[in-house]
Amino acid sequence: MSSIKQAIDAANAQAVERIIAADPVLIDILPAGEVIPGLEDRMVLHSGPPVTWDRMCGAQRGAVIGMVLFEGWAQDAAGATRLLERGEIRLEPNHHHQAVGPMAGTISPSLPVFVVENTAFGNHAFCRQVERQQQFGDYSEGAIRGLQMWRDFWAPSIAAGLRQMGGGLGLKTIIAKALQMGDELHNRQVAASSLFANAMTVPMIKAGLPADRLIGTLGYLANHEVFFLSMAMAAAKVSVDPASGIERSTVVTAMARNGTEFGIRVSGLGDEWFTAPAPRIEGLYFPGYKEEDAGLDMGDSAIAETVGWGGFVLGGAPGILNLIGGTPEQAMRYSAEMREITVASHAVYRIPAFGFDGVPVGIDIRKVVRTGTTPIIDTAIAHKDPGHPMIGAGIVRAPLECFEKALGAFASKYG
Amino acid sequence: MSSIKQAIDAANAQAVERIIAADPVLIDILPAGEVIPGLEDRMVLHSGPPVTWDRMCGAQRGAVIGMVLFEGWAQDAAGATRLLERGEIRLEPNHHHQAVGPMAGTISPSLPVFVVENTAFGNHAFCRQVERQQQFGDYSEGAIRGLQMWRDFWAPSIAAGLRQMGGGLGLKTIIAKALQMGDELHNRQVAASSLFANAMTVPMIKAGLPADRLIGTLGYLANHEVFFLSMAMAAAKVSVDPASGIERSTVVTAMARNGTEFGIRVSGLGDEWFTAPAPRIEGLYFPGYKEEDAGLDMGDSAIAETVGWGGFVLGGAPGILNLIGGTPEQAMRYSAEMREITVASHAVYRIPAFGFDGVPVGIDIRKVVRTGTTPIIDTAIAHKDPGHPMIGAGIVRAPLECFEKALGAFASKYG
Repeated sequence: MSSIKQAIDAANAQAVERIIAADPVLIDILPAGEVIPGLEDRMVLHSGPPVTWDRMCGAQRGAVIGMVLFEGWAQDAAGATRLLERGEIRLEPNHHHQAVGPMAGTISPSLPVFVVENTAFGNHAFCRQVERQQQFGDYSEGAIRGLQMWRDFWAPSIAAGLRQMGGGLGLKTIIAKALQMGDELHNRQVAASSLFANAMTVPMIKAGLPADRLIGTLGYLANHEVFFLSMAMAAAKVSVDPASGIERSTVVTAMARNGTEFGIRVSGLGDEWFTAPAPRIEGLYFPGYKEEDAGLDMGDSAIAETVGWGGFVLGGAPGILNLIGGTPEQAMRYSAEMREITVASHAVYRIPAFGFDGVPVGIDIRKVVRTGTTPIIDTAIAHKDPGHPMIGAGIVRAPLECFEKALGAFASKYG
Repeated sequence: MSSIKQAIDAANAQAVERIIAADPVLIDILPAGEVIPGLEDRMVLHSGPPVTWDRMCGAQRGAVIGMVLFEGWAQDAAGATRLLERGEIRLEPNHHHQAVGPMAGTISPSLPVFVVENTAFGNHAFCRQVERQQQFGDYSEGAIRGLQMWRDFWAPSIAAGLRQMGGGLGLKTIIAKALQMGDELHNRQVAASSLFANAMTVPMIKAGLPADRLIGTLGYLANHEVFFLSMAMAAAKVSVDPASGIERSTVVTAMARNGTEFGIRVSGLGDEWFTAPAPRIEGLYFPGYKEEDAGLDMGDSAIAETVGWGGFVLGGAPGILNLIGGTPEQAMRYSAEMREITVASHAVYRIPAFGFDGVPVGIDIRKVVRTGTTPIIDTAIAHKDPGHPMIGAGIVRAPLECFEKALGAFASKYG
């Protein structure tokens, strides 16, 4: 075994050890501007690698317009578009701010975000809430009203429960249980959302919230089957971040898409993005929409696959197949494939359908390039134009080009 | 095709149509003596076919002693045993009273029971609550205190929420969802219990319960992962009862065990029990217990398998295997086998891991005898002696003898 190979293997072992040792705890829900480092006034964070307004896809543009309206920086979509065209609203990736967001992923200063601490390492990560309108590019009055309800009603009520608990809510147990209940923690969060709602009920009552807030928020939680996605994403981000910046490690530390480009980051290559055009999703569409309406792959939610959930454990979550298509046998094959491109199995997050084997952790860019097997991601589908809610869901492969570019950069850096 | 075979097939089709059309709704939780037909003072109902005190197994004896103490009919176990030996407490099967109970299954007049209505047919069924002490034969002070907490605190609080809802809580949706979340609805109820707690939260708050009752009961529900078993069993019983008494039908309408005998009932053969000695369970034991401690198969909970859940859908619920043992591949094979002895697939209760095929409904005694394939049941294990809590869980096969006897009786009756 060559010494460079040994050094890489050792670095990768360290990377996955850190990912597996992570202990994500939800400690609060607070306005993004108060907690996200470097998030300034007149700035909107978005999913994926960096992208300028002129290259931004339709759905993400629509979502950014929505945030500008939500913040009151413009009075209508035309006004918001003018500000954005003139560069008067700064656009930066969530990943540059310890944050992630599903689909368009847009976060602006007054939007409350989930604050997750990795108590094993002391780092933090942030994620916005999940809904099926504004983050898909819909900036209608109804979509903005949803953001306002989150800011003024639901988020503060849940936060009151969290503060009542003292020390926050451990997410590791909920994640471990949900993975044994058929959630893959990307598009299917029905078990985790239910367990979360149960865990919050007593603390929210003890917090002494007025009856209308208590009933309104607990009713909202009891009927929001994808609610936990934000916490899963923040938990994934906070778990993988300590594995970044390990010299010689070829482990992927982020996969993110902005609807224009798909980008990955690699531990030993620091914060650099290795990008390729965002791929098209194969999926199923909601009534009234069809394949030609679809935008390209979008969202930071592939942070779930980055830590071994989502498409990587599809075989353990066949309930998702009525949303994204495919058969249980295909799903099992996908999951088996993902073991070929990863470094280790998780010690705590185990899948009953795999005989309680752990989820595959630590995508190794060497293995991806050598086998040609790319990470499989299951994901929602947004419209190609601004102004629409969610239109479907499906399966996508990370582009091989990202991994080839990263391996090239790795070779250049480390020889 | 002979005309008798056609007549049987038509009768069986009618039987499974009724089972599939069932719409179980939880309408209340009330003291058994107020709602269960024919449950009188100084009577204890038990699981399985009829059994006298002298032939009753240790765990069921312990549980009956527990109910006598709970009712205050005796002051201590010795006094209770004397009453039972003298025949001063009547013992009758739950199934003779539209009721079911897990493990020893004991129900006495002041114990609150779940009241489930089949709104498609207007019939009712009843089931007692689940706990891991008294129903396993433990009659200690702590075990009796659990029954008192149920009677005085938890049951009335949940019932207040149910009455607040008006019209009760539909169980069909919870069951359908839970079966897609890795519950098999016999030993694994983690998803259904969580969904039930979610559904009850807002109604219980709206019912205006005092804070201590609200917090105490919601906290109890949030941490009781098998709580839904009672509702699953009552839903199964209320679903299968309209399929009873159909002339010429060979469909099984009950499988129940008292720890001494395993008994089945068959639609075209009315209320007659066809019994065989209760089998031994193959399973895993909790620390401190071993195979030699185990009692034989016990409980009405095989009503779950009678309608196609439990062992019949083990392949869709591999999360249960860390409790009962076995591999996901074995679990899938068991489920495939069960299709060979059943009449139809359920239209609403579908399993993702089976490609969303419905659960196998309607055990046909002809198919069981012809193939020699007997129903597979996953179940908890009680001690062979009175005075112990749950000691393990495992897998058991219904005895072929029950089905052979039933087929013999069928041949005698119908020629």
